[in-house]
Amino acid sequence: MRDLRKISVLGMGLLGASITLRILRSLSNVKSFGYSHRASTRKKARQNGVADIIVDDMVECVTDADMVILATPICTFEGIFKEIRERVKDGCIVTDVGSVKVLPHKWGEKIFGKRIHYVGSHPIAGSEKRGVEFARDDLFVGLQCIVTKTAKTNARAFATTKKFWAELGCKVSTMSPGEHDKTLASVSHVPHVTAVALINATSEKDIKYAGKGLTDTTRIASGAPSVWMDILLTNSDNTARGIDRVIKELTKLKTAVKNKNAKHIEELLSKAKRDRDALINYKIKKKELF
Amino acid sequence: MRDLRKISVLGMGLLGASITLRILRSLSNVKSFGYSHRASTRKKARQNGVADIIVDDMVECVTDADMVILATPICTFEGIFKEIRERVKDGCIVTDVGSVKVLPHKWGEKIFGKRIHYVGSHPIAGSEKRGVEFARDDLFVGLQCIVTKTAKTNARAFATTKKFWAELGCKVSTMSPGEHDKTLASVSHVPHVTAVALINATSEKDIKYAGKGLTDTTRIASGAPSVWMDILLTNSDNTARGIDRVIKELTKLKTAVKNKNAKHIEELLSKAKRDRDALINYKIKKKELF
Repeated sequence: MRDLRKISVLGMGLLGASITLRILRSLSNVKSFGYSHRASTRKKARQNGVADIIVDDMVECVTDADMVILATPICTFEGIFKEIRERVKDGCIVTDVGSVKVLPHKWGEKIFGKRIHYVGSHPIAGSEKRGVEFARDDLFVGLQCIVTKTAKTNARAFATTKKFWAELGCKVSTMSPGEHDKTLASVSHVPHVTAVALINATSEKDIKYAGKGLTDTTRIASGAPSVWMDILLTNSDNTARGIDRVIKELTKLKTAVKNKNAKHIEELLSKAKRDRDALINYKIKKKELF
Repeated sequence: MRDLRKISVLGMGLLGASITLRILRSLSNVKSFGYSHRASTRKKARQNGVADIIVDDMVECVTDADMVILATPICTFEGIFKEIRERVKDGCIVTDVGSVKVLPHKWGEKIFGKRIHYVGSHPIAGSEKRGVEFARDDLFVGLQCIVTKTAKTNARAFATTKKFWAELGCKVSTMSPGEHDKTLASVSHVPHVTAVALINATSEKDIKYAGKGLTDTTRIASGAPSVWMDILLTNSDNTARGIDRVIKELTKLKTAVKNKNAKHIEELLSKAKRDRDALINYKIKKKELF
């Protein structure tokens, strides 16, 4: 990591603090600077020693950084880009850990021009725990990280970003922002919305008869509404289209069930079993089953 | 269990064989008779010693039984009721372990009249394992069992059936068949169909980027199609209505997401989190979290 001497992380939640902690412990030539807009979080970050330095001011935090990583809600990116633009040095790489990539690339290109290099990153972490106190230096080990670029993305910044995540232990893959947001809508944002719809459609008086089926199927609906609102608002078109696909499948099932069409029900259930079993077999093969 | 000297279980799958095994080990005054239409299953049942006696012929198996328990697909009940009607003794209780109750009550009343007493039973077991080789004498311990009756159900048979399941370790509750089928559609059959729709709406090429979210949300879609087809065909109206409720909730979410209506998205996500958290808290309180 010769290109990186100072890395500044904005946002000291689970992800942000786990990045600075990992740098602190494993990348001996890199200094990690952390910032949070909350004084109480900065205090906890200092008490837990998750970064080399915790800085009270965001703009001061990014000064002279070789890489700035946003670990804040996606809807804050545009404002932060504008705030830090004048203070980051030439050739600085700005990346993030957000679950959506089209809008950040758009904002990055518009606000940074060619002097500062935005690259999208999405380390796919499934933990429901939140907060600096859960920071782990091994959070990224074995995690998939999708790094995104457009035709305008600086090639060297892109290469350095990929190397950085690999250094943290991630399995790195690359996509265009559009492909990323479509894929993530499919495997994450639409399943989330479906779990939300299912629990909202379930009468409260019935839940005492719920078994493991309903409990598992709706687990992700216990996720933080603020985190998910941020994702749904910034990946709205892909998510809306994905919801339509689920409605279409539900409608097929409804018609088959209503008409007691055994053959069609069997086809739909068997396709689902095949696909779900393939998903699990793939995850077992890749040792990604948690 | 003074009323029960001989209990015959038809179907030696996980549930059927676990019942006979439990009787064999814990109810010393009751003899357990098991039947399966498959010779290979009868052989395995004998090898594993899951019942006092494994009988080769169904009608012979139920002769002189005080209670007959159907642990076969629901769509076989009507035929089995007709086959055993002439051979079971006066006052015999016929019950089952199926996930649907309206149709079995209808068939029972029509076929058995007042000489034989049908009572509905549904021990809610979530295991994905199937087959006599997984039989456990403690499968029913702590499990919820819903016992159903109509205005025509024999009161003494109903009381004995409740006592029987309590003896096996179940937490017994009672419902009308209609209430049962509506409740189970809500907490089990509709979640199943939703998981099926979700995985069927997910493109195969995306699954390698799936995290724990999609994996958990679609777990039940790996269930045996034949088992679920049986349930969906026999509880079709309630399931179809439940699917409509999910589609309605998905449509609300789609509209809110498409219009980037932050307030409405937040409301829907927060309601879901509240209800899902309430579900988990209830399950923790009742020590039913597995």
